[in-house]
Amino acid sequence: MHIAYLPDAKAGTITLPEEESKHCVRVLRMAAGDQLRVTNGLGDLFEGEILDPHPKKAVIALAEPQKGYDHWPFRLSIAIAPTKNNDRLEWFLEKATEIGIDEIFLFHSFHSERRQVKTERLQKVLVAAMKQSMKSRLPLLHELQPFSKLVTQTYSGRKYIAWIDPSANTLLVKSYQPAQNCLILIGPEGDFSAEEVKLAQSNGFEAVSLGQARLRTETAALVACHSIQLLNLIQ
Amino acid sequence: MHIAYLPDAKAGTITLPEEESKHCVRVLRMAAGDQLRVTNGLGDLFEGEILDPHPKKAVIALAEPQKGYDHWPFRLSIAIAPTKNNDRLEWFLEKATEIGIDEIFLFHSFHSERRQVKTERLQKVLVAAMKQSMKSRLPLLHELQPFSKLVTQTYSGRKYIAWIDPSANTLLVKSYQPAQNCLILIGPEGDFSAEEVKLAQSNGFEAVSLGQARLRTETAALVACHSIQLLNLIQ
Repeated sequence: MHIAYLPDAKAGTITLPEEESKHCVRVLRMAAGDQLRVTNGLGDLFEGEILDPHPKKAVIALAEPQKGYDHWPFRLSIAIAPTKNNDRLEWFLEKATEIGIDEIFLFHSFHSERRQVKTERLQKVLVAAMKQSMKSRLPLLHELQPFSKLVTQTYSGRKYIAWIDPSANTLLVKSYQPAQNCLILIGPEGDFSAEEVKLAQSNGFEAVSLGQARLRTETAALVACHSIQLLNLIQ
Repeated sequence: MHIAYLPDAKAGTITLPEEESKHCVRVLRMAAGDQLRVTNGLGDLFEGEILDPHPKKAVIALAEPQKGYDHWPFRLSIAIAPTKNNDRLEWFLEKATEIGIDEIFLFHSFHSERRQVKTERLQKVLVAAMKQSMKSRLPLLHELQPFSKLVTQTYSGRKYIAWIDPSANTLLVKSYQPAQNCLILIGPEGDFSAEEVKLAQSNGFEAVSLGQARLRTETAALVACHSIQLLNLIQ
């Protein structure tokens, strides 16, 4: 079933925006009476029906919202340095959305390969992944910021910095406890500098390892994301 | 440090094949005395040194092999139906190699989107990922085969079929025990047919769920792979 994203969806009769109307009516050839589903990206899913298949301002009726399946009793935030190859970052965003993530921070640091990103394009990847995986919540994507700003901001939960250095021998999966909020920093291809790790530690971040495997940036970020979801699943 | 793949590597003086010689000497501009590392894809890593930087038949000296870090006391096998978009399958192969996998089966089934794959190309993805993640073992990739043949072959270990159907409510992560060999079947975009699930079950496969999230084929396969590695890591 088609799922549409309408941030301001509510029960009752509403008119779809032009692009979504066009997609439903011209591309999917939906007619009056056809069913669709709407997510507001905030945790609600609505069952809907086409009333008027207008190609620019289609009218639909939405039932009372139901809570989506993608709610969990913790907040999972990952901070990642954008990869040199933008596809790899987009891939992480898609997969993390499928698996389940609340919030993504982007930062640039000493060894960063990329200091500019097109947030609008990344936002589209998140929306597509949310719809494709039938989720009701859109992960919150923050604008790119300097590492030094990110690590000094207030955060309520466990704070981790994943580091390749062998001295970081505490495993994330041995330190994290189910139901805790957590923010995990994943370094760029060239890893964090020793100074950055020190700065993070002095701001309450615990240096952890994701295991023995040598992972690419985007793989490390996904492994961290799935580890937290899995530890909560098996508790 | 550059890492080369030489399936028949052994300690002593050896000549590199033409393509690898060209890469080391012409592309990386390695000279006599430069260090490199060699993996045989079978679990051994060799420290090496260039003796003669000949662009077509470079000669290197290899020390006695050391065991790579990528050894674990279980065998992890995943069977996946190739995705319509070949990039998604290649992505899975790359990421599973980074995270750690022993063996990959490819199959076509009732709802398969793709019944042909270029194994040679997939093999290159595996080799590149092995080298990039400094692994000593190359995952074994089997040729595409029919689902019915795959599920009837002998396998020593836990056998699972991951299925979206809500009746498959045993979680893989609750059923699997650390150190067990396992083979996990991941269905195509259109999922397994009820008959296929029945056939697998009658051949000793347990129907399991990977959790509530609705995952793409390649994401499900990676989640299964990482789940097994993580359950062994935290035991």
